[in-house]
Amino acid sequence: MTDPPIIVASNRGPVAFVREPDGSITMRRGVGGLVTAVGGAVRGRDATWIASAITDADRAQVAAGKGIFDIDLHPGARDPGTVHVHLADIDEATYNLSYNEFSNRILWFLHHDLWEVPRAPSFGAGDAEAFAAYRSVNETFADLLADRAPESAFALPQDYHLSLVPKLVRARRDDLPQSHFWHIPFCSPDNFRVLPDNWGIALLEGLLGADVVGFHTERWARNFIDCCREVLGAKVRGRVVHHDGRASRVASYPIGVNVEHLDDEAGRPEVATAFGELTHLIGDRIMILRVDRTELSKNILRGLIAFEMLLERRADLHGRVVHVAMLTPSRRGVPEYEEYIQACKARAAAINDRFARPDWQPLILEIEDDFPRTLAAYRRYDVLVVNPVYDGMNLVAREGPCLNERDGVLVLSRNAGAAAELAGAALIVNPFDVAATAAAIERAIDMPAAERRGMAAALVPRARGTSPERWLRAQLSDLRRRRAV
Amino acid sequence: MTDPPIIVASNRGPVAFVREPDGSITMRRGVGGLVTAVGGAVRGRDATWIASAITDADRAQVAAGKGIFDIDLHPGARDPGTVHVHLADIDEATYNLSYNEFSNRILWFLHHDLWEVPRAPSFGAGDAEAFAAYRSVNETFADLLADRAPESAFALPQDYHLSLVPKLVRARRDDLPQSHFWHIPFCSPDNFRVLPDNWGIALLEGLLGADVVGFHTERWARNFIDCCREVLGAKVRGRVVHHDGRASRVASYPIGVNVEHLDDEAGRPEVATAFGELTHLIGDRIMILRVDRTELSKNILRGLIAFEMLLERRADLHGRVVHVAMLTPSRRGVPEYEEYIQACKARAAAINDRFARPDWQPLILEIEDDFPRTLAAYRRYDVLVVNPVYDGMNLVAREGPCLNERDGVLVLSRNAGAAAELAGAALIVNPFDVAATAAAIERAIDMPAAERRGMAAALVPRARGTSPERWLRAQLSDLRRRRAV
Repeated sequence: MTDPPIIVASNRGPVAFVREPDGSITMRRGVGGLVTAVGGAVRGRDATWIASAITDADRAQVAAGKGIFDIDLHPGARDPGTVHVHLADIDEATYNLSYNEFSNRILWFLHHDLWEVPRAPSFGAGDAEAFAAYRSVNETFADLLADRAPESAFALPQDYHLSLVPKLVRARRDDLPQSHFWHIPFCSPDNFRVLPDNWGIALLEGLLGADVVGFHTERWARNFIDCCREVLGAKVRGRVVHHDGRASRVASYPIGVNVEHLDDEAGRPEVATAFGELTHLIGDRIMILRVDRTELSKNILRGLIAFEMLLERRADLHGRVVHVAMLTPSRRGVPEYEEYIQACKARAAAINDRFARPDWQPLILEIEDDFPRTLAAYRRYDVLVVNPVYDGMNLVAREGPCLNERDGVLVLSRNAGAAAELAGAALIVNPFDVAATAAAIERAIDMPAAERRGMAAALVPRARGTSPERWLRAQLSDLRRRRAV
Repeated sequence: MTDPPIIVASNRGPVAFVREPDGSITMRRGVGGLVTAVGGAVRGRDATWIASAITDADRAQVAAGKGIFDIDLHPGARDPGTVHVHLADIDEATYNLSYNEFSNRILWFLHHDLWEVPRAPSFGAGDAEAFAAYRSVNETFADLLADRAPESAFALPQDYHLSLVPKLVRARRDDLPQSHFWHIPFCSPDNFRVLPDNWGIALLEGLLGADVVGFHTERWARNFIDCCREVLGAKVRGRVVHHDGRASRVASYPIGVNVEHLDDEAGRPEVATAFGELTHLIGDRIMILRVDRTELSKNILRGLIAFEMLLERRADLHGRVVHVAMLTPSRRGVPEYEEYIQACKARAAAINDRFARPDWQPLILEIEDDFPRTLAAYRRYDVLVVNPVYDGMNLVAREGPCLNERDGVLVLSRNAGAAAELAGAALIVNPFDVAATAAAIERAIDMPAAERRGMAAALVPRARGTSPERWLRAQLSDLRRRRAV
């Protein structure tokens, strides 16, 4: 059977345009887990990819009639990697309301449990406007999908930005098999019902427009099914949700590492340089690493407090251990995020004030976007702390072990999707239990070399997981099966 | 079949001692929904009631050997209301840690979803101490229960302060049938797993020591069952949870109003006086009422914002409507509560600054403990707003309609346990949706008299609900049935 053409729709696309200091516009490869995964998965296929025009330079390209173009995502590779890109032209104010307000301040907060519930959310008229913008963006994407999809294509709308797309496409192109993949956690019904009823119903029914709805883990899939049952009153038989005369299969497709891409990146000379700098900085000390975006859900503050607790308890580690927290700036300007990062910085300063000696700074907090340095740190760490409050999958927990050269131990939150596969080969912690997190880091440090080696040997193949190609193939094959029913 | 003797265990007892200004000690009737309900339920039975010595005067009584005594809860009634009271002598520091820190800052926050999850809770060494104190208090209660319970007695440990009691009693008195009633919401497994594992397991297994575990609604009962399944790996058959070689029935027993007690109170002359004062204050304006403790879970702030939204939208109501928010002080001194109440006061002042006219103050916020005034307000309101974020039952939603004399409309949060029974006769709202809350208040105000009358007629019998006696009888009868299995 030949592979069907596919058409992807996602907020970010495989490339982004950037305006250079001299005013010219250049194309950069898109960033983020979704783009890396889907980009790795589409190779060798006839692929169309619809994405938002996001940057000013993206908009300038669209305005100049250059928003539709072909690119090769895998130049030099045996399989062709040509993708037909179509940047959606969305009014900037509408896009900002939809993306910043609805997607990132409502849906993201909801599914990662980030609200201070006694006070927020407090839905009023402004939020209704944000939802209207979100609907409008979803309509634009649905129209483009319906217009652009070849007759025999399989459609793959992606993530929480595009929940309404499947049902909207269904209304225009019922012939089109659709698989929607949700990249973040999905909350339980009690939390989901925080949303105004009409939104909650629209979001769930939107997703149920797809033949297959995919999640990273069984846990998120089950929560989605529970929401459909309790909020929509949908009938559930096994893993199939029946609602409104249609049936959707709900399944988990855990995404793995794009190893080839990661190895390419890690092999660059900048990484070797960064590794040298890190070695100079850390010396032969034990390195505890965390790598995250500056993101409320990543639980940076409790991670710092756990490190402080460890230093309190273990004077013998003073001078022997360094905790490097590498944070990539993200969502600056959102007040909750700004306050949180200030709190993290203040805590880090307090820890250094309390424990530092002339020859030793226990904690190094870096807020910058330096991917080569991150990859170098992956090679060097002895303990990797990944303790999100909730996380759809978490790729740091997978990528770190793939590159690590020291039998590093992974301390991993049980609320990261990655925990489902890595549990047996990592120290799993409750992210709210700081004392337990400190104890796990301590155990990782004290672990005998043979045990570390055994654990690392078990961890690496699990961390690599399913390749993006196989991740996509599993969804397409389920989609084909649903359509054959 | 004669009624078995019963033995109740709860944090607060049916009476509390108070030190008067002259230094003498007097006895007062206990307050709160649990005490009123259980107190109403025990009449005509041989009843023993174990409760904490809480106040200084309670402790003085215990120290003077007067902590064990009989009282008549229903003097003058046909059935005897004699209860054998036993005040548990618990070290003050241990009691405070258990009650303030563990019960009220951990379990209460957990089950009402009150934490700002990115930052709190952050469990460390202090919390382990609080849990140890909680365990110690539960052990004291369990020992007293096991010692004091007559051979054929049925034991009734109450509420979240005493989760560990059933299993502890079971170890000493396996002969004793036990029914535990949980008076607050029970959260879903995703939220429950915020607790350190050893606590979560101890709390669930503690409750499963009872033959019957009761909740106000099916929703909380189902969450508890889900937690047992997912956290303990318990087997669930229908409504019976099998764990550790034992089986517990989980059921809902919605509690109603102690109507007789309420009517007695409402008939007092102080209430008539208060009613006169209120009439003078409100005149013939439309009265929107809320009555709550100053409690994070009651959602006072969003209620005020909803009223503000209504005034924004409906200039024709200016001068014609008054919102009276009667708040009873509670948990003063807890920082989260102090901040919240300050925020409520500030918002109230802002609303009055914005809309007040020389002849009209739109919002009257009262923070005081004045039960006669509350009862008078129940008689007088046109709209009663009960919008908690989560609430086990909420008795205001039941007591208000029982006393109201104006076909008042109830605007009720769907997350209050009371909503399960009152849904058809109240305007149900999502407590996070302030715009929808404002719209419901508006609809209540605009409702034609005939519709209001019909709604009130349907509401009152539902609001009265099951009498405390029948509430207790249902539990005892299920308990008898379990023991006959």
